[in-house]
Amino acid sequence: MKIRNVRLYTGEEEYKRGALVTEGAYVKYAGPEEGAPEDPETVDGQGGILMSGLANSHTHAAMVLFRGVGSDLGLMDWLGRLMPAEDALTPEMVHDGTLLACGEMLKNGVTAFADMYRHMDAAFEAALESGIRANMNRGSSGRDGVDSHREWAKRWHGAGDGRIRVTMGLHAEYTSDEDTVRYAVETARELGLGMHLHLSETEGEVAGCVERHGVRPVEYFDRMGLFDGPVIAAHCVHINDEERAFLARKGVWMAHCPASNLKLGSGVFDLVGALDAGCRVCLGTDGASSNNGLDMYREMYLTALLPKGMRKDPTRPRAGECVNIATRHGCLAMGYEDVGLLRPGYRADWVLLKDDVGLMPGHDAAADIVYAAQGGMVRMTAVNGRVLYRDGEWADIDMERVKARCREHARTLGVL
Amino acid sequence: MKIRNVRLYTGEEEYKRGALVTEGAYVKYAGPEEGAPEDPETVDGQGGILMSGLANSHTHAAMVLFRGVGSDLGLMDWLGRLMPAEDALTPEMVHDGTLLACGEMLKNGVTAFADMYRHMDAAFEAALESGIRANMNRGSSGRDGVDSHREWAKRWHGAGDGRIRVTMGLHAEYTSDEDTVRYAVETARELGLGMHLHLSETEGEVAGCVERHGVRPVEYFDRMGLFDGPVIAAHCVHINDEERAFLARKGVWMAHCPASNLKLGSGVFDLVGALDAGCRVCLGTDGASSNNGLDMYREMYLTALLPKGMRKDPTRPRAGECVNIATRHGCLAMGYEDVGLLRPGYRADWVLLKDDVGLMPGHDAAADIVYAAQGGMVRMTAVNGRVLYRDGEWADIDMERVKARCREHARTLGVL
Repeated sequence: MKIRNVRLYTGEEEYKRGALVTEGAYVKYAGPEEGAPEDPETVDGQGGILMSGLANSHTHAAMVLFRGVGSDLGLMDWLGRLMPAEDALTPEMVHDGTLLACGEMLKNGVTAFADMYRHMDAAFEAALESGIRANMNRGSSGRDGVDSHREWAKRWHGAGDGRIRVTMGLHAEYTSDEDTVRYAVETARELGLGMHLHLSETEGEVAGCVERHGVRPVEYFDRMGLFDGPVIAAHCVHINDEERAFLARKGVWMAHCPASNLKLGSGVFDLVGALDAGCRVCLGTDGASSNNGLDMYREMYLTALLPKGMRKDPTRPRAGECVNIATRHGCLAMGYEDVGLLRPGYRADWVLLKDDVGLMPGHDAAADIVYAAQGGMVRMTAVNGRVLYRDGEWADIDMERVKARCREHARTLGVL
Repeated sequence: MKIRNVRLYTGEEEYKRGALVTEGAYVKYAGPEEGAPEDPETVDGQGGILMSGLANSHTHAAMVLFRGVGSDLGLMDWLGRLMPAEDALTPEMVHDGTLLACGEMLKNGVTAFADMYRHMDAAFEAALESGIRANMNRGSSGRDGVDSHREWAKRWHGAGDGRIRVTMGLHAEYTSDEDTVRYAVETARELGLGMHLHLSETEGEVAGCVERHGVRPVEYFDRMGLFDGPVIAAHCVHINDEERAFLARKGVWMAHCPASNLKLGSGVFDLVGALDAGCRVCLGTDGASSNNGLDMYREMYLTALLPKGMRKDPTRPRAGECVNIATRHGCLAMGYEDVGLLRPGYRADWVLLKDDVGLMPGHDAAADIVYAAQGGMVRMTAVNGRVLYRDGEWADIDMERVKARCREHARTLGVL
């Protein structure tokens, strides 16, 4: 497939008039339109931006069912509204909710996501069905939860031509005990899985950990060797300089969730401080119930703007860094080594934006992507070279049916 | 005209299944669908949200021509890039840039905006042509600039069935002298116009004012009676408690510009502090070159999220307050007394959103508007009861032509 007449942003370079040519699941050519190989299936990009797909590195996909529930409530009141409804979720509801979320993400140019939720067999099914790339786990809080990853590692890891990956999920320090943490780390090593957990999201969590264990969360988990393998640590809002240096040394992927951290009143992650300390940073939306959308363009916008405003320094971070954090970094964090750059030999996960009035006149692709683009400007989204979303239609999702079912579930759950 | 089968948010109440009926330029009915009067011209809203049009209370519309220029530069470097290009602007360029901006705003559900720029006759023409509601002025920095408002007050004030309004524009303290300020205030009173200026946007501006005049900007302008009539004061990031109380007493409209203040590293306006002090707050995008879009949904999102995160209190502000700030308050600030609420007898300025996957399942209209909606979800936008934007088409703008012309201008200006 060839997409011509685009402003191509490869993640490394911009071509004012570029083209992308793919062969099967891979990028064959990414560069100037002049000199690009021919292909019988050619799309006119109409001057829109073509870029790498976005990687949503921390979410709870099926929580789209609870979008808008308990907005503007304090954390405890919010949880009080959510938790009974979550306990009433069935596998079917999680399937449909995850499928709705996958559809929303594809529509917003997201081609890969890292999910942590419950009834995960249903969630794996939905992700596989939708065509998206998904790294999934259960937010375990006990040995049972940890054990369920054994079966998933066998059944799902590498499914869909490598699209589906399994990670060992551990919800958080405050929802598990030492035995569970040790068992999760041990089982992850045994199965060869990375880990995904919530880390130092709120001040209360850090203070509670000190009270319970005499140490802060980073040291607590380090005692059990959690950081000695690949880790996605979501939030990391409340970490001190020492912890930051330590996490950088360990190569932990911090999943920055700017919207959720603001909305729940958790605080603001010091992105520039983390980058300067050599930390590895990726980006996530968190669940739709604390965001309330799954639009990584909006998340990139916050990623770029918050440090500028809070440090009163408009020069950091740069737009290109933010695109990188939202694309390539997320893919690496999730274990997709050959995804996240439009470079020959890499997987063909790409997004084509419209030649939208809001992207005129087209001065700088990275700046337009970070500061002006939004999910609603996406025209096409492809994973492994296959177009999964195009002009309001999904290749593998019957969206009207999914929407109707999700509304019905929301009614059953008492949130509609 | 009747729009049925919508989630109606009037600015005061939500109707899960509502309808809006308009007659000419006015709202005739806004309430439950059951019992709504019939109308020969009926649109099926397909379950989307119907709300009041958004009021962008501070922008420099034609700066869309410079979108993306100098992103990530410090303020002085950024101005150094922009100013020569701005000086090369022709009236024709400002006309086309303003028309592009009006098109972008209508597409994003904006039905009224307050503009401050140059070559304003061309800008008035463009706004009138597009069908939008516009309150316009020149960012004066001398007597000439002030004087030009005399002719505009005669020619433009009230044009287009009241859509176009003229305000006396004064750029800022640091770009004018005392004589100009006195003359602007005097002329505004003489012509019966409100005023629009930049106020206490950066720390440097406040410090400079103290150096130049021995007092901070609020006191400086107050000495010349500037606040004794209607005022839109853009930014107000760096005001102290005393100034806040004073501006509240005077009923000054503070145009909060959260994105621009972050992006330029100016800081963060204390919205909750201002509301608690009784200040009147409206909302603006600022120019597209420091945003880089004209999407008031994104601006509402920032309005809601920033205080929650910075004060670590998720309960303030509430979604409904933010919608109010972005709709009714802006209309009042611009002098449109009967606009900004969907209430019988008010002007029919409304927006219909799609039944978008990103707004599922539809729990709470105000929360969905503030936390989940984006400009790209707008299906229809109407001003004075007339549909100006619908499904990618503008009633009064030949957008492909405008885009081509703006690209040409950007090339001439050396930014493309």
